[in-house]
Amino acid sequence: MEAKDIPGFFAKPEEIDAEKYIYLDYYFECIGEPEAAAAHLCSEQSTAQWKRVGIDEDFREEFGAKVLELKVIKELDEISCPVKNVFDGKTYACKAKIAHPHNNFGPRIPNLLSAVCGEGTFFSPGIPIIKLLDIHFPKSYLNQFEGPKFGIEGLREILNVYDRPIFFGVIKPNIGLPPEPFSEIGYQSWLGGLDIAKDDEMLADTSWSPTPIRSKLLGAAREKAERETGVPKIYLANITDEVDRIIELHDIAVENGANALMLNAMPVGLSAVRMLRKHTKVPLIAHFPFTASFSRMQHYGIHSQVITKLQRLAGFDSIIMPGFGNRMMTPEDEVLQNIKACYEDMGHIKRVLPVPGGSDSAVTLKNVYEKVGSTDFGFVPGRGVFGHPMGPKAGAASIRQAWEAISSATPIETYAETHEELKAAIHAFSKRK
Amino acid sequence: MEAKDIPGFFAKPEEIDAEKYIYLDYYFECIGEPEAAAAHLCSEQSTAQWKRVGIDEDFREEFGAKVLELKVIKELDEISCPVKNVFDGKTYACKAKIAHPHNNFGPRIPNLLSAVCGEGTFFSPGIPIIKLLDIHFPKSYLNQFEGPKFGIEGLREILNVYDRPIFFGVIKPNIGLPPEPFSEIGYQSWLGGLDIAKDDEMLADTSWSPTPIRSKLLGAAREKAERETGVPKIYLANITDEVDRIIELHDIAVENGANALMLNAMPVGLSAVRMLRKHTKVPLIAHFPFTASFSRMQHYGIHSQVITKLQRLAGFDSIIMPGFGNRMMTPEDEVLQNIKACYEDMGHIKRVLPVPGGSDSAVTLKNVYEKVGSTDFGFVPGRGVFGHPMGPKAGAASIRQAWEAISSATPIETYAETHEELKAAIHAFSKRK
Repeated sequence: MEAKDIPGFFAKPEEIDAEKYIYLDYYFECIGEPEAAAAHLCSEQSTAQWKRVGIDEDFREEFGAKVLELKVIKELDEISCPVKNVFDGKTYACKAKIAHPHNNFGPRIPNLLSAVCGEGTFFSPGIPIIKLLDIHFPKSYLNQFEGPKFGIEGLREILNVYDRPIFFGVIKPNIGLPPEPFSEIGYQSWLGGLDIAKDDEMLADTSWSPTPIRSKLLGAAREKAERETGVPKIYLANITDEVDRIIELHDIAVENGANALMLNAMPVGLSAVRMLRKHTKVPLIAHFPFTASFSRMQHYGIHSQVITKLQRLAGFDSIIMPGFGNRMMTPEDEVLQNIKACYEDMGHIKRVLPVPGGSDSAVTLKNVYEKVGSTDFGFVPGRGVFGHPMGPKAGAASIRQAWEAISSATPIETYAETHEELKAAIHAFSKRK
Repeated sequence: MEAKDIPGFFAKPEEIDAEKYIYLDYYFECIGEPEAAAAHLCSEQSTAQWKRVGIDEDFREEFGAKVLELKVIKELDEISCPVKNVFDGKTYACKAKIAHPHNNFGPRIPNLLSAVCGEGTFFSPGIPIIKLLDIHFPKSYLNQFEGPKFGIEGLREILNVYDRPIFFGVIKPNIGLPPEPFSEIGYQSWLGGLDIAKDDEMLADTSWSPTPIRSKLLGAAREKAERETGVPKIYLANITDEVDRIIELHDIAVENGANALMLNAMPVGLSAVRMLRKHTKVPLIAHFPFTASFSRMQHYGIHSQVITKLQRLAGFDSIIMPGFGNRMMTPEDEVLQNIKACYEDMGHIKRVLPVPGGSDSAVTLKNVYEKVGSTDFGFVPGRGVFGHPMGPKAGAASIRQAWEAISSATPIETYAETHEELKAAIHAFSKRK
């Protein structure tokens, strides 16, 4: 790219038609002039400043991505993580806001991903280190997506629970336990007060616990628990599988009484989720395997809130995500950004229920509630329910007791004096906090 | 985990049934004792050392992942990239080989990904930094996959080319050019000697270049070029799109004369590729958007050769990958590992054609050929054909002339004295080398 070509990849926000673009926030470290690097980034990810030989044409105005803002944060001695095969020169840390014309690719998740975190982003000349920090969509783009079918409000209607968090639990042992004892402990957890008993994200349709058998047993156990407790319950079945089996597994599991379905979003692919969204009769819940592989590094990869927003776009009603505390190795501000991404205005795309998880129990509920700052979240212990020393029914009861304490502004230790399940939970799990 | 539980996650290779496991090579940086960290890694990614309350059971023998080898490379002053929320203690860089029972999840790509690069890998206690370096499959696992339908040999049969590299070219301008002029320059490139003219990975089914129209024009142009040159040609159409449209787009494009199809593997999802593989009538070619987001960091994420192997498993016949040289910011040994992963023995899973790409032209062909060390590769210029100063026909001719020079052991500069297209290519592209 020559110096005279650089201004063609810059624009002022008021100069462009806002509805024609999606907006991308990048952090990058460049070797060489930041303006040239940012122009290259736009060129590589949209139209590569191409013209046919012998023909005077310029696709940039209609098809070019454009830098709306470029901020040089500071000059660096070297890039922050080593990358081989880079060029020499002065090194800068920068942030850029880029407008990318969405008509280049249309309302297609795989093509959107290819445009914003594809070759044009990660192989732009002179930019060895780059992270896609955030993404924003105009109404015109959002209107071409269906989004969640149920959302927070739909989930609350199914459960008839409006004034408190939704209590999930991951049935454990997760791997190896046959369907019969698995359904028995799920049943116990509903009796104790869980709203949603769920499969682990590692447990899908296996030879030793086939989905048709497991969902039938859990569906029956759910209905029994509903009759006995008089309140609605959800069995959340993990139907993560090959793309050409998920519609069939949806039908089997739902017919058998699973009334919400989980998919490991990135392993299955967001586009497959969008396909299932068109078919589903029940809420869809996302789990997060794979995402940390590209989101954990501070200065490289893709920020997890981008994936949270794309999961909403694909049609998930609730998103399980790495939560608070040391265990999940995720900075608190990142957890909060992901929660915000579940709530924030995305036009007609419904708000979805965030489920920040990680080594939770009755002991951690207050902290999570205070950090979220709302009752619109899901709480998802594993051990905190199924490893409770008095068993899963008591484990679930301990969570509900903790919430009763919190909502009546009573210290849980005080409330535990008259509630033995909570007392046992505090004893068992406090050291793990 | 208590100290007494650690040995249950270690095994000697001769103690396990080799066919029941897949094998994983990890690099990790742990805080605390390496043996405990490696045991945790196994526990988290398979059965979390769980037993029901009050029941004496141990799922580890059948369902537990096991450390076969653990090598402590060195003690570190600190982890090599900052990760928030980690624990305190001595820090070690380690490598481990882990055997993971594939019956835990079965022959399903999304569940395989969830097991080997999911929560259990990236959220294992005390291991903030980890990279999945390699993966190996036993025959019993491979036998449950179809793999490539054509492979290298199938592609060569279609083209009737057996003794040289396959010459691809990315038709440019890639974004914004309407189908008619786009097909005209594709046609020119076939006349000049390209085997395969292809869509850019960013160009799919768009409003300004719909697949039905583009594939019809390119299909007709391909047949015309075949008639005029007397040799088979391939139009490689990019059908990257939502999962529930790729079968339909396959049918439209193939009916119209596209005789190979490209998909952006990770954005579409490997499982969707496996679905298409069952249906396809033509070879499937992978492109690499998104992969760098988790593969570039030396010590974190997932090595690209893991994805290369999974792409073979999913059924791709050829894999376009970041190639040699500064432009693609990929270490040479990583490019070579990816090429090797296309060739190496995977039972009945066919060998696939590696296409290492990045700013290639007649000038770079010799270097790529020498590094690959075989004619079993694809060469994929963009500008080197479509930005050739005499036009795409001359651009394609310059590549073929460069190969004539190489295969007759003539310096390309000497050969260029009597071949003006090659001469012009050397003049135009040498400075870019």
